[in-house]
Amino acid sequence: MRRAVEPPLALTMGEPAGIGGEIALKAWLRRADDVPPFFVIDEPERLRARARALGMDVPVRAVEGPEGVAARFADFLPVLPHAVPAPVEPGNPNPANAAAVMAAVERAVALARAGRAAGLVTNPIHKRCLYDAGFAHPGHTEYLAALAGGGARPVMMLVGGTLRVVPVTVHLSLREAVDVLRGDAIVTSGKVVDVALRVDFGLAAPRLAVAALNPHGGEDGALGREEIEMIAPAVADLRKAGVTVSGPAPADSLFHEAARKTYDAVLCMYHDQALIPLKTLSFHEGVNVTLGLPFVRTSPDHGTALDIAGTGRADESSLLAALRLARDIARSRRSHADRRRTA
Amino acid sequence: MRRAVEPPLALTMGEPAGIGGEIALKAWLRRADDVPPFFVIDEPERLRARARALGMDVPVRAVEGPEGVAARFADFLPVLPHAVPAPVEPGNPNPANAAAVMAAVERAVALARAGRAAGLVTNPIHKRCLYDAGFAHPGHTEYLAALAGGGARPVMMLVGGTLRVVPVTVHLSLREAVDVLRGDAIVTSGKVVDVALRVDFGLAAPRLAVAALNPHGGEDGALGREEIEMIAPAVADLRKAGVTVSGPAPADSLFHEAARKTYDAVLCMYHDQALIPLKTLSFHEGVNVTLGLPFVRTSPDHGTALDIAGTGRADESSLLAALRLARDIARSRRSHADRRRTA
Repeated sequence: MRRAVEPPLALTMGEPAGIGGEIALKAWLRRADDVPPFFVIDEPERLRARARALGMDVPVRAVEGPEGVAARFADFLPVLPHAVPAPVEPGNPNPANAAAVMAAVERAVALARAGRAAGLVTNPIHKRCLYDAGFAHPGHTEYLAALAGGGARPVMMLVGGTLRVVPVTVHLSLREAVDVLRGDAIVTSGKVVDVALRVDFGLAAPRLAVAALNPHGGEDGALGREEIEMIAPAVADLRKAGVTVSGPAPADSLFHEAARKTYDAVLCMYHDQALIPLKTLSFHEGVNVTLGLPFVRTSPDHGTALDIAGTGRADESSLLAALRLARDIARSRRSHADRRRTA
Repeated sequence: MRRAVEPPLALTMGEPAGIGGEIALKAWLRRADDVPPFFVIDEPERLRARARALGMDVPVRAVEGPEGVAARFADFLPVLPHAVPAPVEPGNPNPANAAAVMAAVERAVALARAGRAAGLVTNPIHKRCLYDAGFAHPGHTEYLAALAGGGARPVMMLVGGTLRVVPVTVHLSLREAVDVLRGDAIVTSGKVVDVALRVDFGLAAPRLAVAALNPHGGEDGALGREEIEMIAPAVADLRKAGVTVSGPAPADSLFHEAARKTYDAVLCMYHDQALIPLKTLSFHEGVNVTLGLPFVRTSPDHGTALDIAGTGRADESSLLAALRLARDIARSRRSHADRRRTA
């Protein structure tokens, strides 16, 4: 059973010198367009000033917590106050604010884990700025895994329309990706994705596809042996573990319209193998979702866009898709938990 | 000025155990659909038998040469007889026929170079079968370069709708592609593509884009240094040589609809970087064209499809696109040559 009122989603500030604030304001203006209620963890004054500067009619109101926010979301943009120490200049991230940026993520996680937020949607952060500030984790996903604790195995999935892709190796040079790719990572990711398709996406019988690493799927070893020695055995292991899975298949034949109907998600061997088809088909509507965490987390699939920050030109489509997907996953998880309780 | 009657295109048999014959028959049945006149270099009897077996109403007629073929193409499918020594069994290539298969290509080249054919369209060959027969060249493209002689620098381009992609490295494992990628190959390919866009595609001011090798374009060196050390310098060299070129750009942001309007062709660093977006967008209509040869050559962008050979299920769309593109390139080359003569 669904609760009478679902808790709202927590939207983190992200890099305040980026476009996060602007797309949050724009998303609220689209609130009649199937946008789930959310609150921003950020500075109300700065958001208010930004709305005014950009001529957006957004009543920004500070709130003390998520409670009651959903019912009044139509009337104002709720902001849970969260200060940054240094002044914010659009386009110029300040490492002095990095700790506060990540503390906003930590607050969102705490609210989600307490059931006070349905999940978190994270605005983009500026990695170099966080590195410069001595931040230990290379990205959101790793930080969230650390916050989740208990050996959480976060897996990044990108969703665009009906296409779901999972890069098994992520932020590495292409050479390093080829070097570090291992069968057990394919198996681990595949298992996490299989569970997530059931619990988070509500699919009763999910089908995975696995992409080959090499062109033409390696052509029986003539164009690389990873398919034979690593990927096909990983597919066999997944099958033994009860996962419905096909592949390894030549990556260039996996993403046309007819092919996309034969699976529910694709395990890709490297970043661009996943991101090229996703962004070719859904450039503005891609969503990044972290699977395998004990709380719901999505993110728009773009960066801080420092070059256009402050101009009002940023496109809110990806954030809207991220908010809707977070809501859908939260609902699917609740419904899954309810079924287990009553079973 | 265009000649009163353009010569027909020469279509090679390709692997006779594959789908080449069937798609040739199907292409002729579509002849009213903007299909340029062509003749097949193959065995008339076998094609006739195949048409009968598949219930296709195609009058196959042996011809002595390309002359007069274009005017009568509406009435019959012209076939320039070219025998293979061993019996042909659909789905089972016989290395005993490999030499004859490649001799058909050689005949097509000779006819094209003599101006008796407007160009050649090559049906797919079976590489393993050619290897087994001791054939020295790994594929059509290399063989055609050898036939062209004179240091021809063939460059493979894939065309699907308005998208044109050029893989700078081709049939290599992904690891080898990363290993062998060199700036001078990018520069050489870029120059060939720039000329081809003018001469073969009739573009007065072509624009090239160059894809990055690493995710996020290498993120200023954090995810690989090839962009900084190799690709950006190659782009600068191309620019110095008068080529209008942009990049290196993150590959996942190059292929969505708006991005595709900013260039006329993309130089890609490896096979799947080019083929994933092309086949995602144009799975059945992709065409392989060899640039930099002294004759026109295109090919359907698929293999011999041995698994469905003889069933009549093969899709002729890519062959039709290859025939039309060969005609268009031949016309563009003639018109370019005419302009140079009258200038």
